[in-house]
Amino acid sequence: MGAQPTVSDVADAAGVSRQTVSNVLNTPAIVRPETRERVEEAIRSLGYRPHASARRLRTQKSSTIGIRLDPMTRDGISGSVLDRFLHALTEQADRKGLRVLLFTADDPQDEIEQFRRLSDGADVDAFVLTSTFHGDPRTEWLIEHGQSFVTFGRPWGIDDMTDPLHLWVDVDGRAGLREATDHFLALGLRRIGYLGWPAGSGTGDDRRAGWLEAMRDARAVDETTLATLEEAAEDGVPFGAEAMRRLAARVDVEAVVCASDSLALGALTATGGSIPVIGYDDTPVAASLGFSSVRQPLDEVASGVLELLTGAHGGRVQSSVDDPRHRLVTPQLVLREGATLLGAR
Amino acid sequence: MGAQPTVSDVADAAGVSRQTVSNVLNTPAIVRPETRERVEEAIRSLGYRPHASARRLRTQKSSTIGIRLDPMTRDGISGSVLDRFLHALTEQADRKGLRVLLFTADDPQDEIEQFRRLSDGADVDAFVLTSTFHGDPRTEWLIEHGQSFVTFGRPWGIDDMTDPLHLWVDVDGRAGLREATDHFLALGLRRIGYLGWPAGSGTGDDRRAGWLEAMRDARAVDETTLATLEEAAEDGVPFGAEAMRRLAARVDVEAVVCASDSLALGALTATGGSIPVIGYDDTPVAASLGFSSVRQPLDEVASGVLELLTGAHGGRVQSSVDDPRHRLVTPQLVLREGATLLGAR
Repeated sequence: MGAQPTVSDVADAAGVSRQTVSNVLNTPAIVRPETRERVEEAIRSLGYRPHASARRLRTQKSSTIGIRLDPMTRDGISGSVLDRFLHALTEQADRKGLRVLLFTADDPQDEIEQFRRLSDGADVDAFVLTSTFHGDPRTEWLIEHGQSFVTFGRPWGIDDMTDPLHLWVDVDGRAGLREATDHFLALGLRRIGYLGWPAGSGTGDDRRAGWLEAMRDARAVDETTLATLEEAAEDGVPFGAEAMRRLAARVDVEAVVCASDSLALGALTATGGSIPVIGYDDTPVAASLGFSSVRQPLDEVASGVLELLTGAHGGRVQSSVDDPRHRLVTPQLVLREGATLLGAR
Repeated sequence: MGAQPTVSDVADAAGVSRQTVSNVLNTPAIVRPETRERVEEAIRSLGYRPHASARRLRTQKSSTIGIRLDPMTRDGISGSVLDRFLHALTEQADRKGLRVLLFTADDPQDEIEQFRRLSDGADVDAFVLTSTFHGDPRTEWLIEHGQSFVTFGRPWGIDDMTDPLHLWVDVDGRAGLREATDHFLALGLRRIGYLGWPAGSGTGDDRRAGWLEAMRDARAVDETTLATLEEAAEDGVPFGAEAMRRLAARVDVEAVVCASDSLALGALTATGGSIPVIGYDDTPVAASLGFSSVRQPLDEVASGVLELLTGAHGGRVQSSVDDPRHRLVTPQLVLREGATLLGAR
């Protein structure tokens, strides 16, 4: 263990929560004077130093943001979203005089080692994390070590998603799938299937919830039928095709909404384009083949991340509905005519 | 103009070529003693200092590589190659303890401004350039200012591609298109068309040359027919489709090889998959739709770039056929059954 005391050490010594320590450091005016004194006493006696980088970043001097470059996904279809996010982030960071440093890591533990290495060497002043997941150890480590960071992705599975120490931006996948499903419902379709990932992925469960909600609100089908209308598969075109065949063998499905464009392309392959399909991520594959998809507004995500990192939100009045430390961005449904290749025949 | 003397200033003062100055700095043993003295005298009198970063990098200390993140291409299909190169480069750089810093630029002149800013601030020790083109002003600037760099892409249009000051790695697109064309010729096909870009792009002209060479060597068709077998179009699926329709209206084409997967997908769209098509870049679109394509070995390109940057080639004996300062990597033809979506019908 390092000799440097952490936020938790201060919280323990003062008998308060980490959030209170954070408030004393960032917004002391909202902390009761006696609590503040107790925390300040603990900070002094432990020799705690909030990481210098956070302040450097907030004062808008030239700083460096570290971001892990995710490994390429097998088929490279959905993975391109993170590349597009990286493009948006780098362009906007450049305009603010911030630099983007890339690194790779084999797994979350390795990524934490990289955090340690890059922050010790003062190479990086803040981190941007992508692909958050249930029980993610990375954010815990960063909070413990007072490192500035923002995640693209919610802190899935953590009780308090409004933890002020965890700044995040995410896309409202539930709203996206809901809009996609509502689009088919408005066309008079009822047996709308859902192709998603196995349960347990925060992102996947969230998207599924949007489909389920729309179907139930519209009373599109009875609950027994509803249960037959979904299939889960690992992400990938062949897995999507298999799942679609299982679905079609069981129920006379009229349309399908999917958790990804890879699954959507699988569904199109399996059905030969005979039923309409909506994917997710609006990848180049969806655009070039001409099928509909839900688009993540990555420019908006990137600007949200940078605003949170540089504290550009600091002047705004806080409210519980519009918490300036978290951003949930609404995706857009991009409608297209239908798969070009199929139409050409 | 800056007060710092450049390699050219030293060369002018000593009455020698830039290459000789470079040799004096890097491999003094191969320079005649009197020439060496004259150059060293010029270096002293002008107060020339070779950029410290080059040596820092070659001594393998922790260093930072700057790379411009190219803007996303319109359809995002072919552009993904540079993203895949970035992934390969970052992974391999990490293993060598090198860091990758990203920046963006609106045009070559802006990129040169970024070179200046990032090298002055000592943020970056060496640059990796992509998308080289005829008369590229960027490499000239870097050479003049003694900045370490390697390009992914040849110095198109420059008389001396073996300039020892310009380290480059590239993929042999000519060999790739030649192999694609030979594949169709071996199947007994003769009227093999080519969909490429308008003349003047180094990369495009090189790929076209591979098709032309294979067709002529095999005496596949007479010269008059050969001239009717090619069409040029801006990169993009709809442009590829239009070009394919023009081609098919003019000649009974039996197969098509293309300069990109975007053009190939356009050709598939226009023909409904009735003739075989080979694309270039082996993008996720080619893989997921199941058409053949020429694959650039980006891991090999990335390792070549890093070897040249870190001087890992220094110990090898130099020869003109295997110049260790340039690498021309051979691509692989990835054969696939045919477009999945079409086959499904």
